[in-house]
Amino acid sequence: MIQQEGDLYSRLFLVLKGVEYMSNLKELQEIIGYNFKDEKLLENALIHTSYAHEHRLGSSGSNERLEFLGDTVMNMCVSENIFRRKPLISEGNMTKIRSGVICEATLFKAAKSLRYGEFIMLGKGEDKLGGRERPSILADAFEAVIAAMFIDGGFEITREFVIKTLGTMIEEALKEHGSKDYKTTLQEVLQSKSDKKITYEIIDEKGPDHDKVYTAIVKWDEEILGQGQGKNKKEAEQEAAKEALKKE
Amino acid sequence: MIQQEGDLYSRLFLVLKGVEYMSNLKELQEIIGYNFKDEKLLENALIHTSYAHEHRLGSSGSNERLEFLGDTVMNMCVSENIFRRKPLISEGNMTKIRSGVICEATLFKAAKSLRYGEFIMLGKGEDKLGGRERPSILADAFEAVIAAMFIDGGFEITREFVIKTLGTMIEEALKEHGSKDYKTTLQEVLQSKSDKKITYEIIDEKGPDHDKVYTAIVKWDEEILGQGQGKNKKEAEQEAAKEALKKE
Repeated sequence: MIQQEGDLYSRLFLVLKGVEYMSNLKELQEIIGYNFKDEKLLENALIHTSYAHEHRLGSSGSNERLEFLGDTVMNMCVSENIFRRKPLISEGNMTKIRSGVICEATLFKAAKSLRYGEFIMLGKGEDKLGGRERPSILADAFEAVIAAMFIDGGFEITREFVIKTLGTMIEEALKEHGSKDYKTTLQEVLQSKSDKKITYEIIDEKGPDHDKVYTAIVKWDEEILGQGQGKNKKEAEQEAAKEALKKE
Repeated sequence: MIQQEGDLYSRLFLVLKGVEYMSNLKELQEIIGYNFKDEKLLENALIHTSYAHEHRLGSSGSNERLEFLGDTVMNMCVSENIFRRKPLISEGNMTKIRSGVICEATLFKAAKSLRYGEFIMLGKGEDKLGGRERPSILADAFEAVIAAMFIDGGFEITREFVIKTLGTMIEEALKEHGSKDYKTTLQEVLQSKSDKKITYEIIDEKGPDHDKVYTAIVKWDEEILGQGQGKNKKEAEQEAAKEALKKE
């Protein structure tokens, strides 16, 4: 009799756990603004390896496979966004901007703002060790959810989600790039006007080896647009470009 | 009068060049099986830096920006294809298969089969040096055309193109992976049947250090499925898995 009661309680417990879990998934879908046709995909995206291991779900039971795919989807969406918004900057500068958007710190931030930590499924040990707050775990879940959404709802809806959730980070990376790299900005501004060539020249080098000051000028074909000084050639050129931009 | 005739001829030459070029672009679109709404995008995808440099098109005039984007589109399409076709293999093995599909040699092969070498626009020097046959130049153009198509026609049509043109390479990479890695295949087969644990054990080690022979067994929970020998532990395990697969 006691045995049966125990069974009943534990069965009841499981049913309640299940109900709680389903309501959790509903809440998460409200937060991310997308309802999954197949909620199993979202569930899969939230299963950390520690949970998969503890429940013997096998190597394909955790969110690692989805993370693999989600990484590429996110990468493409962010790259496209930068590509379209900055039609004149070089491939190298787009790469720099992208790496400012896609890194563990920013994905962690995005995952936190979507409260993924509350929904992620961890093994008991990992949970006790603070896994819900661990940047790598949340960043991986962020990528996995992107893949789950892509598989469930297709590309367009996923792109929208990626750009919405990483929007602030993209803005920040674009701004930082713009403010730092005067040479690129100058190139953008001038290229839209004509095909004339922009060149930089170091016209002066002063001081002892450990404390050199370089002077650079920037030319647009033969016209001198600006002059700048710096501790190395690159810095001097940036300053020259900065001066040229003030005149534009 | 002679001057005027010269002008006339050179103008006529340019008109004919233009007509030839447009007809080239038409031919290429027939080869790739897609008609661009904006042919300028396809043209941009075919401009190598050496041509852009020679014609002073600026840093955004070459196909490097498109290559940056195309790489991510291709990566995502191939990853998705592997993900869907191999639902049970690990993230690590998907990465291995993908790197067998996406490398300079395979993209070069794909670009050659689409005859990109005939259409690519090179600087005179690069052209004389055999640029039309250079793997890196053609592989980059392959990626750039993917991006051009994506911008012009959207995701679905581009995915279809990527999977069609890289189809043979994906098949080969899947086959090679499958034939080499018996442990993964065994795991796939067994995981679809039950959650029982697959383990490997080294049960014997014979011979001198420089010529050891290891014997491994593979177990499914407690049941021994196969036994194999090899020069190292990994090889012995692979052989054990191979034997187990014969029984399945």
